[in-house]
Amino acid sequence: MKISLPSALRCIVCSLGLTLTLSAQPSGSRPPPIDSPVVHPDRTATFKFRAPNAQKVELSGQFLRSSQPLQKDESGVWSITVGPIEPNLYPYNFVVDGLGVADPANQDIFPNERFKASLVDIPGEQPSMYAVRDVPHGELTTCYYHSKPLNRTRPLIVYTPPGYRAGTDKYPAFYLVSGTTDTEETWVKVGRVNFILDNLIAAKRAVPMIVVMPYGNMMMGMPRPDTPEVAGMYQVFNEELLGNILPYVEANYRVIADREHRAIAGFSRGGGQSLFTGFNNLDQFAYIGSYSAYLTAAVFDKHFPRVSADPAATNRQLKLLWLGVGKSDFLYPQAIAFMDLMKERKLEHRTLITEGGHTWMNARHYLYETLQLYFK
Amino acid sequence: MKISLPSALRCIVCSLGLTLTLSAQPSGSRPPPIDSPVVHPDRTATFKFRAPNAQKVELSGQFLRSSQPLQKDESGVWSITVGPIEPNLYPYNFVVDGLGVADPANQDIFPNERFKASLVDIPGEQPSMYAVRDVPHGELTTCYYHSKPLNRTRPLIVYTPPGYRAGTDKYPAFYLVSGTTDTEETWVKVGRVNFILDNLIAAKRAVPMIVVMPYGNMMMGMPRPDTPEVAGMYQVFNEELLGNILPYVEANYRVIADREHRAIAGFSRGGGQSLFTGFNNLDQFAYIGSYSAYLTAAVFDKHFPRVSADPAATNRQLKLLWLGVGKSDFLYPQAIAFMDLMKERKLEHRTLITEGGHTWMNARHYLYETLQLYFK
Repeated sequence: MKISLPSALRCIVCSLGLTLTLSAQPSGSRPPPIDSPVVHPDRTATFKFRAPNAQKVELSGQFLRSSQPLQKDESGVWSITVGPIEPNLYPYNFVVDGLGVADPANQDIFPNERFKASLVDIPGEQPSMYAVRDVPHGELTTCYYHSKPLNRTRPLIVYTPPGYRAGTDKYPAFYLVSGTTDTEETWVKVGRVNFILDNLIAAKRAVPMIVVMPYGNMMMGMPRPDTPEVAGMYQVFNEELLGNILPYVEANYRVIADREHRAIAGFSRGGGQSLFTGFNNLDQFAYIGSYSAYLTAAVFDKHFPRVSADPAATNRQLKLLWLGVGKSDFLYPQAIAFMDLMKERKLEHRTLITEGGHTWMNARHYLYETLQLYFK
Repeated sequence: MKISLPSALRCIVCSLGLTLTLSAQPSGSRPPPIDSPVVHPDRTATFKFRAPNAQKVELSGQFLRSSQPLQKDESGVWSITVGPIEPNLYPYNFVVDGLGVADPANQDIFPNERFKASLVDIPGEQPSMYAVRDVPHGELTTCYYHSKPLNRTRPLIVYTPPGYRAGTDKYPAFYLVSGTTDTEETWVKVGRVNFILDNLIAAKRAVPMIVVMPYGNMMMGMPRPDTPEVAGMYQVFNEELLGNILPYVEANYRVIADREHRAIAGFSRGGGQSLFTGFNNLDQFAYIGSYSAYLTAAVFDKHFPRVSADPAATNRQLKLLWLGVGKSDFLYPQAIAFMDLMKERKLEHRTLITEGGHTWMNARHYLYETLQLYFK
């Protein structure tokens, strides 16, 4: 995001709100702000980072095969120009003497519990699926519900489609779950679900729907499970979603409250949670999506014996079981094994195998594909 | 925010979503996650940061008189325990060999265009004014409007009080403007305006109201002004607020659309914008708040000659002109000069002079005070 400030404002830019590390410097010596990243018309991009004391600064990004070193100028600003880069929205960070940090000059951040990274958008010749186009825009509401399993107030982000606020229509509800270490904001800020849906709805390629994004991490404030079996955490999420989140949404939003108008999907751990909760509640959900995720045969057979006991009945119930994974995803073998398991169990499903790995570019791609399939 | 993950999950925590700097490490050697900050019952707090290669790591925070050095252990984790700390919600960051970075283990970040910092909450014996209490919660909606001055789609965050979604009542509207380099999120994530209002409304100390938070930076994508006169940017904000934001809000939210039910206030540059827009539109706003801000006499006299020409008329119109500043604020002399100017011009106003500087602790405090005065 490019921001120019008149010189009269620059002197106070660094001292407002937070003084922090710059407060000790006399204002006359404060360095000018840096523009980073700057994306050029030929799809190369320049990244800059001020670190006069660093020995080595590298750029790490999912558009690079490996980290690339930046060069330092006499003022202590490191820079690099890379590309041309394939159009997409990518996470990246700087690695400063081995330490990963977000780009201080870039306000587009990747919401996460554990790492700090930034986002760079490389536009193509056509506006991207996630671009802010001149179409009607939906809204994103952060609301708060009480989680009984965790005994705390938790946030929920709800996308409502264009026209919702002024209207009286009811809509189908899509529950979209974040991955490990992501927060309830990640599907919005990295996934750009709202702009993708605005664009698909305007093009009549998706059914207007409500999207509910919970904070998928169910371990907060809980004792560590005695066993590492992930299904224990999936059970807690199942309880939270069915017992607290779904009733909150249905009491507060105009949703069509039946199984044929409910979908659940997620990325990574959120995909596992969605498969588990979906199969566990086929009377509640008719659409299940797994983006770069899986359940093991052991978990599946232990928890859902009735699903595979009568595959014909399950197939009549499930309008869509959608499974996507990238060929270089570190979970690729497990995801493929789950697809094979579904075949063996005679459970109908659709698959999408793409290039790429366990990335948000793939997660966003799978979201885009499946938003055109739900509730149809 | 404390998060415990079972060991089975830990191995994938670092590789999901973003591989980045950790991707080159074999998963067996990945270090365990760090808990930081940890606030102890005696109101001391421990901050930790993994940086095996750093020469020097310091903690910079608005609860410290000066930056404090951390000590490194044999695993490359730096740590420090400071305090006891006066209860409040504080920004802080680490300074690693001179470089300011946010705390990677803390997901509570300070939304800002230019710096990356984290937030630490030091609770007192009583729940704070901004604590998430067991009271009805309002909602925060991010919506999108078209800005004519900037010719782009811009975000707006709107707080609606508890009961809004299900009800039919109309509410007064408070326009709350961010400071320089802040974003439309800063009043929420650092100011905690929603939880403060939830608590004040539950205690019947504030009138239920809608709060509209625009992105105050009006320089984006615009040519640099030919002169550094800040009022030029204030004029653009005035045009945006009256021409685009206010009509959008009044078309989409149930607000009482008259001057006695509109307030405007802001922190720092947002305070200047609020004074300018408020005085420029006394037919539209009856409440004006300035949190750590001012207008110069030159700007005031040039733009608002009619306001001081008939102070009695202005005083009849203005239900509240509220001016707050901290004694160690770097804008203290200018803010005091503005209070003196108001006295000279015989314009009634209320002032609050506090300890402390140009900080978000003060901004939040002024917000808390004034929320109890608006629309009464």
